[in-house]
Amino acid sequence: MAVALVLERKDVLSLRDIDIPETLGPRDVRVQISTVGICGSDVHYYTHGRIGHFVVEEPMVLGHEGSGVVVEIGAAVTNLKVGDRVCMEPGIPDPTSRASKLGIYNVDPAVTFWATPPVHGCLTPLVVHPAAFTYRLPDNVSFADGAMVEPFAIGVQAAVKAKIKPGDTCVVTGCGPIGIMVALAALGAGAGKVIVSDIAAPKLEIAGRYAGIIPVNVAQSSLRDAVRAECGEGWGADVVFEASGSPRVYDDALAVVHPGGTLVLVGMPVDKVSFDIVAAQAKEITIETVFRYANVYDRAIALIASGKVDLKPLISGTYNFADSIEAFERAASGRPADVKLQIRMM
Amino acid sequence: MAVALVLERKDVLSLRDIDIPETLGPRDVRVQISTVGICGSDVHYYTHGRIGHFVVEEPMVLGHEGSGVVVEIGAAVTNLKVGDRVCMEPGIPDPTSRASKLGIYNVDPAVTFWATPPVHGCLTPLVVHPAAFTYRLPDNVSFADGAMVEPFAIGVQAAVKAKIKPGDTCVVTGCGPIGIMVALAALGAGAGKVIVSDIAAPKLEIAGRYAGIIPVNVAQSSLRDAVRAECGEGWGADVVFEASGSPRVYDDALAVVHPGGTLVLVGMPVDKVSFDIVAAQAKEITIETVFRYANVYDRAIALIASGKVDLKPLISGTYNFADSIEAFERAASGRPADVKLQIRMM
Amino acid sequence: MAVALVLERKDVLSLRDIDIPETLGPRDVRVQISTVGICGSDVHYYTHGRIGHFVVEEPMVLGHEGSGVVVEIGAAVTNLKVGDRVCMEPGIPDPTSRASKLGIYNVDPAVTFWATPPVHGCLTPLVVHPAAFTYRLPDNVSFADGAMVEPFAIGVQAAVKAKIKPGDTCVVTGCGPIGIMVALAALGAGAGKVIVSDIAAPKLEIAGRYAGIIPVNVAQSSLRDAVRAECGEGWGADVVFEASGSPRVYDDALAVVHPGGTLVLVGMPVDKVSFDIVAAQAKEITIETVFRYANVYDRAIALIASGKVDLKPLISGTYNFADSIEAFERAASGRPADVKLQIRMM
Amino acid sequence: MAVALVLERKDVLSLRDIDIPETLGPRDVRVQISTVGICGSDVHYYTHGRIGHFVVEEPMVLGHEGSGVVVEIGAAVTNLKVGDRVCMEPGIPDPTSRASKLGIYNVDPAVTFWATPPVHGCLTPLVVHPAAFTYRLPDNVSFADGAMVEPFAIGVQAAVKAKIKPGDTCVVTGCGPIGIMVALAALGAGAGKVIVSDIAAPKLEIAGRYAGIIPVNVAQSSLRDAVRAECGEGWGADVVFEASGSPRVYDDALAVVHPGGTLVLVGMPVDKVSFDIVAAQAKEITIETVFRYANVYDRAIALIASGKVDLKPLISGTYNFADSIEAFERAASGRPADVKLQIRMM
Repeated sequence: MAVALVLERKDVLSLRDIDIPETLGPRDVRVQISTVGICGSDVHYYTHGRIGHFVVEEPMVLGHEGSGVVVEIGAAVTNLKVGDRVCMEPGIPDPTSRASKLGIYNVDPAVTFWATPPVHGCLTPLVVHPAAFTYRLPDNVSFADGAMVEPFAIGVQAAVKAKIKPGDTCVVTGCGPIGIMVALAALGAGAGKVIVSDIAAPKLEIAGRYAGIIPVNVAQSSLRDAVRAECGEGWGADVVFEASGSPRVYDDALAVVHPGGTLVLVGMPVDKVSFDIVAAQAKEITIETVFRYANVYDRAIALIASGKVDLKPLISGTYNFADSIEAFERAASGRPADVKLQIRMM
Repeated sequence: MAVALVLERKDVLSLRDIDIPETLGPRDVRVQISTVGICGSDVHYYTHGRIGHFVVEEPMVLGHEGSGVVVEIGAAVTNLKVGDRVCMEPGIPDPTSRASKLGIYNVDPAVTFWATPPVHGCLTPLVVHPAAFTYRLPDNVSFADGAMVEPFAIGVQAAVKAKIKPGDTCVVTGCGPIGIMVALAALGAGAGKVIVSDIAAPKLEIAGRYAGIIPVNVAQSSLRDAVRAECGEGWGADVVFEASGSPRVYDDALAVVHPGGTLVLVGMPVDKVSFDIVAAQAKEITIETVFRYANVYDRAIALIASGKVDLKPLISGTYNFADSIEAFERAASGRPADVKLQIRMM
Repeated sequence: MAVALVLERKDVLSLRDIDIPETLGPRDVRVQISTVGICGSDVHYYTHGRIGHFVVEEPMVLGHEGSGVVVEIGAAVTNLKVGDRVCMEPGIPDPTSRASKLGIYNVDPAVTFWATPPVHGCLTPLVVHPAAFTYRLPDNVSFADGAMVEPFAIGVQAAVKAKIKPGDTCVVTGCGPIGIMVALAALGAGAGKVIVSDIAAPKLEIAGRYAGIIPVNVAQSSLRDAVRAECGEGWGADVVFEASGSPRVYDDALAVVHPGGTLVLVGMPVDKVSFDIVAAQAKEITIETVFRYANVYDRAIALIASGKVDLKPLISGTYNFADSIEAFERAASGRPADVKLQIRMM
Repeated sequence: MAVALVLERKDVLSLRDIDIPETLGPRDVRVQISTVGICGSDVHYYTHGRIGHFVVEEPMVLGHEGSGVVVEIGAAVTNLKVGDRVCMEPGIPDPTSRASKLGIYNVDPAVTFWATPPVHGCLTPLVVHPAAFTYRLPDNVSFADGAMVEPFAIGVQAAVKAKIKPGDTCVVTGCGPIGIMVALAALGAGAGKVIVSDIAAPKLEIAGRYAGIIPVNVAQSSLRDAVRAECGEGWGADVVFEASGSPRVYDDALAVVHPGGTLVLVGMPVDKVSFDIVAAQAKEITIETVFRYANVYDRAIALIASGKVDLKPLISGTYNFADSIEAFERAASGRPADVKLQIRMM
């Protein structure tokens, strides 16, 4: 039995004791959780009780963006030791599945993922996790940074799939938390500049403070004009990351990528999208899609540790574990200038 | 002045003399045309007078699938000599454009293309063409084969972009001329088997005669079942080529590709398509698009010469140049078992 | 206790009872072995007692090219059932190692491999193997074919790493068993033709019976001339596979690959090689190396099942298990026309 | 007739009038040269009269690292206008050659290259150059920076060929001008850190001033230890760039790259190198080679303009054109702390 932030059902959170499996296998570690970020999906389960076909049918511990300290290791663990500061990849695949053997364990249908029904998350003081999906944090990466690795990993996955080349000009449509992560990952991956578009001024303002990010408020001006100004007439951006999920954005995305360029679909539209396939063909673009991440946690940590990517300005507020329901209420309220809220467990 | 098959305007063809530029530059060759295939785009200009924003506003010579014999070479030509049997790539880019420098000259906005308004095509006895886009045919590749290189090159481009790996199981949705070309190119590129789906029984029957092609009549049975039978439960095809342009097919295409697989968009739907982006993301697939071809003519010729790909069974009828209007009328009538009609010029 | 072909020490083979672990884990299968091919490495352990730093210090069961029938499955096995005809990938990695997570489990330093000291091989009637590395054979793939999958997989790995494009012209230097496998895999992967060079006439004669293979006896004529004849002056082959390990071959390999082409190093020279780095740079070639294989067994099986690759002509002799020492003696004698010897276990 | 720095023959430089072709073609621009960097190859022609099979047999103008101002444009030029500040790619391919069509125009055998016999270089006030190989400099990129683009482009080419992924740990063996360029390009391309090794303390000291570069003096300590310290036991660097050409370095390069990693051969050893192919195979590494560059000038300029890469600290001295022989004498003397000398033409 351990205390945890439990989503009892849609709209009902409790901070209460709950029974969580605690058996430490030979290749597992036990981690004392330090910091947990609140993700949009956590909030969505709270406010809607489901995401797609994942439905909260039993009380479920929330949280999957965690960092902490190793307090116990299984008998066969060699890559970590007690006292290591770590963060955890929340998805655990079947390691010998067809997808895992191919190195794309993120799309293994057997993956279990923290805080995705019926799997408990990490908003509880102690968790057991496979050592293979637990990553040591360098000394200059704080626990708060460590809890940012999970959302940043999505950006890094997008940047890796985009095969960014040095000096690329990129576009990110959508300046929510994931859009900003993608923009920072693109810059970290070698982009020369990144145009970020949205209609939400406060988040664009935050993004625009980073060197290399050019914010464009498409409520006021045109993305196509902005790209033309940066890339010249008759060509376009090397990579366009769609990170809004807004059905109105796809035409612009296709218009601003250059012939032979790449469109990366990160944002998840609620419904099917009316998509101009011939426009994509006329430029013979490549379209990549992103589903979580695989093999990028160490890259995300390295970029943070190098100083190339600073995620601290994105932490809009930090709450004690005791106040975590209040943190979720704020997250659910959707303040315009909030990018990421975190909960400190110790 | 030379005789040519001229599309005067929508619905009106003439076999008549027309003034075509004949200046032979130092890097050009003059080719006496032997055989020209009739492409769906030729027919579409004939019956509709336009394709998208390309509108027939002046009389235009049709034909872009040509083979022939070199009868004269420019002073600087070294790769060809008089008497060489050849076929010609009908699109000519600006060789120092940004796209051309990158090796993707097919998406150079400056490309001119035979029988695409206002550029004349090759249904005329003699044409002048850049030597760099004229390819020698080996002795065992006939003129009829040579005139098939152009449409087959689209299949090869699709196969190259798909990055087919040996033993892949592929799906081609759509069994029109291009769908069959894609299926044969996929087999030539190393696919172990190719499932081809359509609702048109006669063309499926033709495709099904090739070893390695599994025809599926989706008017009678399910593509998903067919893929499940070949690939097992819970996985899917390595590569799905969409070659129908039918808006109803995209859901199936996404359903039958395996996690991490590739969808290649070859077919050109008339309108925007309702596309399930989240379904693509959940498998983190890559989507490639195809626009004509670049750097594949030599590959297409090599596959034909090797005997790996036999395109002769796809030639449904051959007409003399004098009967070319009749050939176009047959092509426009859309006989179910016609794959490709050709016109013999000499 | 089970009977097995045991290498007692250098030069000494016995067919005798030996104690082999037989515990069937929940994700393992038990396979009754049908056929085992004799590999050059088996012979080398027999005649030299070592390969590099792998030294035979204890009696070891030989054999790693095996096919058979599943006779028992672990409780958690879902991909196989009793009665399935199968072949087995002989290397077993740590599935959560860094290399395995990346999909390159073949280079996981923790791999254990059949018949590589101190691990026993499969020349024994029953073996236990992880289901994840056991592959079902289609009905039209015989046990003899199934025992060819392992050596053929090296060819397929080479072809995959070469990223062969359809219609490529390839060169394979060296016409031993691996060179032939590479040539057949290259053809199966879409090569238009493959020039195979060696100084051993009998094996070239066997290779040359395959459509698409052009044998070149470099004791009598020049590889450079042969490539020039096929590829034209001033260019070269798309991919050169070095499969001889002979130090004299590397200059030719670099000479015959075209600018921007690929050299794949498959053959393992005994000593360091004098290598012309500037010659490689002047063409800016890519050099790939091959170490066993990963994720290609299903591809190898698919190519065999498709009929695209026929390995039966490479089976030079088949022995009963009772005569397996005789088979090894023949293999050690190195008959010029022997490509592969197999032992039938049941 | 124009004044130029002329290499008369080995060891003899003159600043004198020379006849240089000045015809401006329709797709050419005329550039007034501002700044020219001195390359090791310029110096080598001066001191040795040859590089490989390129022999100075006639007086030749030196210099190929140039920036300047467009003073006249050909009739068909659209991408540039008079007054544009530019730098020039010194190699001009045949734009319709086989290599150029593939996008790898750097390996076109027909390339002509400034200051490579018998082609004159750019150490003269006015040059004519194809507009397609002339690149506009943004306002914040100085002429001095612009003259650094050429050597930096080699680094960018190496980084592109390495397919660096964000957060990679790289190694560069050799800290000469090219080694430093490669290290900076790798950082610009997303590397988290770059270990640079050499035995020359002064250049390591200069390199070590850059954030992200870890200098290792291998006269005093071991590269293998340094990599182990950064990458942990039992793995290695993601990419190793060999930029010394020293035959003693290759074993270390192979030892410190991780399984499945990449070795990029940039340095050009004088003689063939004793290379451990089996060591490369045991890790199944990919080896890329670099020959000049293609399609990276715009990338190099973008990285400089973005502020991600600052090349100014590498300019060790600047001379007036009138003093250019003195500049060459200093360059030939090889001062330990000199990275790049430049000549200012106006």
